[in-house]
Amino acid sequence: MNIGFIGLGRMGSGMAGRLLAAGHAVTVFNRSSGKAAALQAAGAKVVDSLSGMAGAEVVFSMLSDDRAVEDIVLGESGLLQQLAPGSVHVSCSTISVDCARRLASAHASKQQHFLSAPVFGRPDAAAAGRLFLVVAGPAEQITALQPLFDVLGQKTFVMGEAAESANLVKLSGNFLLASVIESLGEAMALVEKGGVDRRQYLEMLVSSIFDVPVYRNYGAMVAERRFDPAGFAARLGQKDMRLVLAAADELAVPLPFASILRDRFLELAAAGKDQLDWSAIGSLAARHAAGKDDAAT
Amino acid sequence: MNIGFIGLGRMGSGMAGRLLAAGHAVTVFNRSSGKAAALQAAGAKVVDSLSGMAGAEVVFSMLSDDRAVEDIVLGESGLLQQLAPGSVHVSCSTISVDCARRLASAHASKQQHFLSAPVFGRPDAAAAGRLFLVVAGPAEQITALQPLFDVLGQKTFVMGEAAESANLVKLSGNFLLASVIESLGEAMALVEKGGVDRRQYLEMLVSSIFDVPVYRNYGAMVAERRFDPAGFAARLGQKDMRLVLAAADELAVPLPFASILRDRFLELAAAGKDQLDWSAIGSLAARHAAGKDDAAT
Amino acid sequence: MNIGFIGLGRMGSGMAGRLLAAGHAVTVFNRSSGKAAALQAAGAKVVDSLSGMAGAEVVFSMLSDDRAVEDIVLGESGLLQQLAPGSVHVSCSTISVDCARRLASAHASKQQHFLSAPVFGRPDAAAAGRLFLVVAGPAEQITALQPLFDVLGQKTFVMGEAAESANLVKLSGNFLLASVIESLGEAMALVEKGGVDRRQYLEMLVSSIFDVPVYRNYGAMVAERRFDPAGFAARLGQKDMRLVLAAADELAVPLPFASILRDRFLELAAAGKDQLDWSAIGSLAARHAAGKDDAAT
Amino acid sequence: MNIGFIGLGRMGSGMAGRLLAAGHAVTVFNRSSGKAAALQAAGAKVVDSLSGMAGAEVVFSMLSDDRAVEDIVLGESGLLQQLAPGSVHVSCSTISVDCARRLASAHASKQQHFLSAPVFGRPDAAAAGRLFLVVAGPAEQITALQPLFDVLGQKTFVMGEAAESANLVKLSGNFLLASVIESLGEAMALVEKGGVDRRQYLEMLVSSIFDVPVYRNYGAMVAERRFDPAGFAARLGQKDMRLVLAAADELAVPLPFASILRDRFLELAAAGKDQLDWSAIGSLAARHAAGKDDAAT
Repeated sequence: MNIGFIGLGRMGSGMAGRLLAAGHAVTVFNRSSGKAAALQAAGAKVVDSLSGMAGAEVVFSMLSDDRAVEDIVLGESGLLQQLAPGSVHVSCSTISVDCARRLASAHASKQQHFLSAPVFGRPDAAAAGRLFLVVAGPAEQITALQPLFDVLGQKTFVMGEAAESANLVKLSGNFLLASVIESLGEAMALVEKGGVDRRQYLEMLVSSIFDVPVYRNYGAMVAERRFDPAGFAARLGQKDMRLVLAAADELAVPLPFASILRDRFLELAAAGKDQLDWSAIGSLAARHAAGKDDAAT
Repeated sequence: MNIGFIGLGRMGSGMAGRLLAAGHAVTVFNRSSGKAAALQAAGAKVVDSLSGMAGAEVVFSMLSDDRAVEDIVLGESGLLQQLAPGSVHVSCSTISVDCARRLASAHASKQQHFLSAPVFGRPDAAAAGRLFLVVAGPAEQITALQPLFDVLGQKTFVMGEAAESANLVKLSGNFLLASVIESLGEAMALVEKGGVDRRQYLEMLVSSIFDVPVYRNYGAMVAERRFDPAGFAARLGQKDMRLVLAAADELAVPLPFASILRDRFLELAAAGKDQLDWSAIGSLAARHAAGKDDAAT
Repeated sequence: MNIGFIGLGRMGSGMAGRLLAAGHAVTVFNRSSGKAAALQAAGAKVVDSLSGMAGAEVVFSMLSDDRAVEDIVLGESGLLQQLAPGSVHVSCSTISVDCARRLASAHASKQQHFLSAPVFGRPDAAAAGRLFLVVAGPAEQITALQPLFDVLGQKTFVMGEAAESANLVKLSGNFLLASVIESLGEAMALVEKGGVDRRQYLEMLVSSIFDVPVYRNYGAMVAERRFDPAGFAARLGQKDMRLVLAAADELAVPLPFASILRDRFLELAAAGKDQLDWSAIGSLAARHAAGKDDAAT
Repeated sequence: MNIGFIGLGRMGSGMAGRLLAAGHAVTVFNRSSGKAAALQAAGAKVVDSLSGMAGAEVVFSMLSDDRAVEDIVLGESGLLQQLAPGSVHVSCSTISVDCARRLASAHASKQQHFLSAPVFGRPDAAAAGRLFLVVAGPAEQITALQPLFDVLGQKTFVMGEAAESANLVKLSGNFLLASVIESLGEAMALVEKGGVDRRQYLEMLVSSIFDVPVYRNYGAMVAERRFDPAGFAARLGQKDMRLVLAAADELAVPLPFASILRDRFLELAAAGKDQLDWSAIGSLAARHAAGKDDAAT
């Protein structure tokens, strides 16, 4: 299939590489150049403007936030102007519910299709085709693209015909992950101040009731205060909590845990530490219990 | 070994049964009679006062709260008066840090040993010897009793020489579980009001990043509003959050998530629903987002 | 002075009436017609498009939200196109910090001046010239317009040269008021469930340490569940908490009380009650403590 | 009247002095000696054990917490043993609802009367007879002692026949005061980070909608970071929030603001700053927004 791929960060590069390796013709574009060399060597066609996407049957995008996706789609000479009627834009970015709705509407006005397909997984999972994809949009297009989703991920979860549903699900998933981090941070702050070693404590948890990578990995980062380099930066986590709360505002759903997470990320940002891994919020409970800086990140 | 067992609720009965089945001489006592028939049939000696524990080398207790344990140990003709010097009391109840400290001190004054050994696991795990035991107290006694712990559980985690450390760890573990329930409750309230089926949403979560029984089981209870009969009653969860916050108060550790959980249990209690399973707190986010009663428990 | 006034709701009508009564030539405009009759009778010139503001030296606006003000200023044939260089726009609306910043910049690009002058006070205070004005913007213009501010209010507080500072101050003031309502709601829920009459309790408070209209008035509304008709609608309070939290997000200031207030307004909105007075959030603590609807608004 | 007074701290001394000045025979007792010299010079009879209270018709106590009051009343040779049937104990301390209930019951068992009469006001108000008294207990005794209450305070508020009602009301009043401090702390942190001077901001507030000593005084302490010496120590404020939450727990009333206040006091205690004035919690919002120590207390 003739595929376009926009956004060659650590996630996007891995995903585009998978599509290439599966034998597809892949045309790649990145706003800042110089990231495409390895993909080019692997057979990708590299273009330096979105007009290069004109012939694609399906274009994936994997970008950092609402603005980046809107620039690509709605900007001057953007994807909306380039794609042929009947083609499909698959947005894998973690964007707002509202933005997804606007994009779906914009594409529809040009007889183009729009799917939201945000993913769970880190860059290594992207490169290995081990992502989890959460997909929503018109059923016909989802069915048609299933073979591509199978190349990118280990499982695909379909969340209905409204594209933005997938974004809501993805955002709420990040809320659950941040809740795991915060709860571990509070629990460790408590037991440690009570005289229990937090690493030993974590070992107990992940050897018993929380025997799952999410607790194991984030727990280790919190227990060892290992937040640098970031796998997923706190400023992105902060953005996601903002989008969760924006969705909750629109839908009128009070979310007390989410508000606490918001404040944790704000405190981290105020301290100039939002480039750390987002699990750094797990150090704040100990910091507030310590009264001094040595317990801090 | 000559073993005593006090407290024959659903957890205690299963544990005492395991010890019997392993070939030990087990003397059992319960404050309300009539619960010991099955154990008696299996070979247990049933006594109707604590004086019957006089000859035991080790006595386990599995009771509902601080007061119940203190009555048994410190009450008139209590365990403290019955046990011989050198014998061991192993308290498996989920009690406060402060209570454990007082019990350890009381037993020490009589040259008796005290271990805290609270457990993670439901009645079926108790009956099958599949519990997780969190044990703290003098190392020598822990080592000596390890064969008994191996009969009761699949793993033993030692948390140091201060008995109350095990209780702090157990309480903080229940805090983590309650945080899982609340976070799932909030996430489901959000996605459902956004048009996503909460059962389908849960299936996605537990098939991807949260593939672990805790999320699967509590998630199902929240998604299906299945809180009756209670596996673990909300009033006990409420008690545990109270004890977590009491420990946090003593240790000066602010715990914002725990405070929210406290309020959830209070709201459930106010509604006369604290006999439901504690996962019922997971229905309150939806209730506050619904504005009507049909979303309630 | 030749004055324009845009926005003739209950607040704006009273303010425009004051300016008229003080002898100024006042030209008034409202998006929905029919509200200007009384002012016309009192001598105001009524215009039906913003071009009628062209000759004004100073234009006041008193509108409901960001969008309304932006439509008036930045919309087609808006104020920006009508006002002469050197003229002044005084925005009295409770709008976001970000919006005020954009408006200041837009006016500056046309050599027009922009002041933010949000007010504290209800419609009766507006009609009586008893408002409190919080003003920010270029000092020269503030000084020049002081006589007009003296007609509108009993006191003027100058908050610096950045117009948006006045909006931040106004929003934070509404946050303080909402905090008063919530704290009274919680206190009354507590004492009443403990057997104390909430009206008698309030009488004690406002006869001793809280002897000030804010506590007296909101306290009475909460104690008597008197939320209809609204003096200030909950949906506007909700908007203001949203703007407070948006400012806090931009400035990286965690605000735990504000997050709780946000959730209160969301719960009210979810119940379809956001047309009630914003003091209705003061009934939610009792509702959560009651477990049934009869304690609700 | 023959009056006893127990507890000669800054509050108690002022109150006892008022009773003396009004011409009553006052017998005073303090656990630590040496505080009674000035009162002795003014005519008080100083006793060094509670047996000296035997002849009193009414005994006031003004002590720091539950334990202090229980020691005095229920301890060996305590007030319960000393007072004649028909005499009255008036407890002015800020104690728990539960403690007041126990004291009332204990006194009743000896045919003694018990009133709770906690007060609002600082030591200067105590010395000047300007306190506000919140009184509960049997109506007959309250009526009989009204002349004494008039000597101690400017107003008396009767809260019913159950003594503990007065304690609940007093505790909830302290909750309201702490809420004022926290809300001011958050508002000032926000506006200051937005470029507004916090002193100027406070001046605006207390010259307009919050023109009342509570806001003026606590506002000034927060704005000027003036927390030492303490008028009312943070550790006492912390105790009161603990008692508020204990009452809320017993009554099943979720109190989100109170939980946040609890965490603020815990953070202050963790930092070793609980000897500061309780208004020091008003500095924590700024601290969390600053990311460094110079914004701290």
